[in-house]
Amino acid sequence: MRDQLEKLLRPEQILTEREDLIPYGFDGTAMLKEKAIAVVFPETVQEVASLVKFAKAHKTPIVTRGSGTGLSGGSIPVANGIVVCLVRMDRILEVDTRNLTLMAEAGVLTQAIDDAAAAEGLIYPPDPGSMKISTIGGNVANNSGGLRGLKYGVTRNYVMGMEVVLPDGETAWLGNKCVKDVAGYSLKDLFIGSEGTLGIVTKVLLRLLPRPQARKTLLATFNDIEQAAQTVSDIIAAKIIPCTLEFLDQTTIRCVEDFAKIGLPIEAKALLLMESDGPLSVVTEETRRMQEIAEKNHAISLRLAANNEEAVQLATARRSAFSALARIRPTTILEDVTVPRSELASTVRFIESVAQKHHLTIANFGHMGDGNLHPTFLTNERDVEEVERVELAMVEIFEYTIAVGGTITGEHGVGLAKKAQLTAQFADASYPLLQSIKRSIDPDNLLNPGKLFDV
Amino acid sequence: MRDQLEKLLRPEQILTEREDLIPYGFDGTAMLKEKAIAVVFPETVQEVASLVKFAKAHKTPIVTRGSGTGLSGGSIPVANGIVVCLVRMDRILEVDTRNLTLMAEAGVLTQAIDDAAAAEGLIYPPDPGSMKISTIGGNVANNSGGLRGLKYGVTRNYVMGMEVVLPDGETAWLGNKCVKDVAGYSLKDLFIGSEGTLGIVTKVLLRLLPRPQARKTLLATFNDIEQAAQTVSDIIAAKIIPCTLEFLDQTTIRCVEDFAKIGLPIEAKALLLMESDGPLSVVTEETRRMQEIAEKNHAISLRLAANNEEAVQLATARRSAFSALARIRPTTILEDVTVPRSELASTVRFIESVAQKHHLTIANFGHMGDGNLHPTFLTNERDVEEVERVELAMVEIFEYTIAVGGTITGEHGVGLAKKAQLTAQFADASYPLLQSIKRSIDPDNLLNPGKLFDV
Repeated sequence: MRDQLEKLLRPEQILTEREDLIPYGFDGTAMLKEKAIAVVFPETVQEVASLVKFAKAHKTPIVTRGSGTGLSGGSIPVANGIVVCLVRMDRILEVDTRNLTLMAEAGVLTQAIDDAAAAEGLIYPPDPGSMKISTIGGNVANNSGGLRGLKYGVTRNYVMGMEVVLPDGETAWLGNKCVKDVAGYSLKDLFIGSEGTLGIVTKVLLRLLPRPQARKTLLATFNDIEQAAQTVSDIIAAKIIPCTLEFLDQTTIRCVEDFAKIGLPIEAKALLLMESDGPLSVVTEETRRMQEIAEKNHAISLRLAANNEEAVQLATARRSAFSALARIRPTTILEDVTVPRSELASTVRFIESVAQKHHLTIANFGHMGDGNLHPTFLTNERDVEEVERVELAMVEIFEYTIAVGGTITGEHGVGLAKKAQLTAQFADASYPLLQSIKRSIDPDNLLNPGKLFDV
Repeated sequence: MRDQLEKLLRPEQILTEREDLIPYGFDGTAMLKEKAIAVVFPETVQEVASLVKFAKAHKTPIVTRGSGTGLSGGSIPVANGIVVCLVRMDRILEVDTRNLTLMAEAGVLTQAIDDAAAAEGLIYPPDPGSMKISTIGGNVANNSGGLRGLKYGVTRNYVMGMEVVLPDGETAWLGNKCVKDVAGYSLKDLFIGSEGTLGIVTKVLLRLLPRPQARKTLLATFNDIEQAAQTVSDIIAAKIIPCTLEFLDQTTIRCVEDFAKIGLPIEAKALLLMESDGPLSVVTEETRRMQEIAEKNHAISLRLAANNEEAVQLATARRSAFSALARIRPTTILEDVTVPRSELASTVRFIESVAQKHHLTIANFGHMGDGNLHPTFLTNERDVEEVERVELAMVEIFEYTIAVGGTITGEHGVGLAKKAQLTAQFADASYPLLQSIKRSIDPDNLLNPGKLFDV
């Protein structure tokens, strides 16, 4: 394999030694790994195209990968396949301040995109938890969410176009710099969130917004999850759409406090992190009203960040949740169910009851304003009996989610981890549609085969 | 045919007489018509499904239609095909104020959707020019734009889900009430804007927003199109995103004034309609700054609507543009090119030069903030020689648009009218993708065949 790949790439762009391949055998998902035959680091779209043509000729599957921060196993290699890792395609090619767009190669880090926007007084709003190390290509492949999703939406809302290498090795441009375009099917929307199964995204054209003038951060704690959920409902009912409405349950609060020492009240049962951004007068007014609503719902503590430093510290409470929880038990399984906002409180209660029933520790946190919860199983993958109970609990949570009109994944994707649940969510004539689209675009099942569904 | 259809529908749901079919033989597009074999008016999704199964068994093509306001011939019948007209599926099924969603059948008028939202203090932002008579199903099939697109986006941004009858007669639900969902390919995004070629949308689930507190309308005129275009660029560069930035050229100004008598200065070469909405303090500040920017760019008149009545009157200047122009010559061909905002001024100039070169009258107006222009050919379809010049001019305008990174259609769709141009815009490996997706979902080419492209 190495000999053949060296006809396409320089030797230092190719890894084939067993120990070199190990770090590329897993991603951020617990309990999943696989070994590729080679990991390659193309630097141009031409190199990507030649790799796909090579793979097609040899019927060797390709799995595309960025930083490997995925949480559903979407970039786990296929045994004896090639991993195409795009981290060396890391140039920001243009910030167009007249059209408010940014063009970048797929391997650019999400944080670097927003930094480049900020330098021009602009913002790239999607901010996945992993944004300091995740790549924009991975964000597009997974349609990543983030903490600002409530007000600003997700990655899809900011992708104007992309360069993509198709399964036959041909390169296509989908989209353009026009803010409106209805010519033909929206192929870019089909490719966004397709988890590398339809093509390899090599460049992205992103939409930027004017950077908000001001931001205020408010942290409230409650004796009871209902009160936190009611606060969220009341804020939305008051026609306030803050940029962030994040939730932590008691287990998460305690882990975070132990980890980050920011003075959270560990007796609290629920915590809400609320952020408003925009013109200063609006932010001041929205924050005041959110404070009132939290008080009305019996918040036991309320803390308004006095300055940016304190705001960052309060946001840390939420941003460090996953890392803090990961220290408790050997295995951390982060789930991603999302429900209509009106079903939030009952879903949180249901997850608690499932944890009790199966004698499991399930910490819960998430994007409450989006209805997106991250019930997090703290377990040990070597304890076969406990893992069985985890799996039973998960199935119950997924079934409940689908029954209340929710989705098995709000932002992490299906990958390998949720293939079984996808059939339950797509229980009608829509499931065969997924497969027929995959077959029509990738007839040889060459790109990320076995992810999302089998064909 | 009638006998067979009467097994599926009541007699009053079926038209087959020659004179009854005529009104369903055309839409809002000039110079296109065709005769169906029957027009049917299903009232339930089951009736739609049974019609599709019948059509499949008899290999009879189906064209779906709402109010027939389309501007690219997308709902022109196929000869000897059936027209499925959804205007009797016109119930609003739910306004969910907890989740800020609205569920409606496909035949509900767009205006009725926004009225139902307004009754709850909410707004459905997409406002196509034809919103008083267009149906929401047609809006979804065409991914319709509107005057508020600059700030609020287009129909796609508000569709959370849909019920769709597929070409095999099976019914599927795509999407849900979750504000985030990454399970599987985004099928709803593929179906939005697919112009009835992949399925028949029977219900839509829409996202609503809190209705803005205040709105201000400002009308400015200029001696020169450059100054208007520069005003738009300066507003965006000042990080202001107003909800509306609409443009009229001199020909349009004169026709509108003649038609609507609202006191527009007919010596002006360009007119800008600017609207800001949101919290009152923000609206006041944005309007003040837009006024300053227009003055700096030598506006010859500036009018700030004193009240809602005057605001509606000023907006009429823009909303009546098409009707006003349609009175001048026997045939009105409304184009829909869209370019990156930075290319606006030069595109307007180019269209003027094309009109001169071919001795044609091309009025120009459009959504300047979106880069979406509606060059409007005032002509006579019976004048064969003039129509030839119109066609030459159009091709030049399309070629220019594509060369500067624009699109042949920003909001009207491809339909029949722009099939030839679609190949020029999708000049790479993306064009075969369109066809293979169509083939995979509608292998018998049953739904709206011959629209967008041939397979």
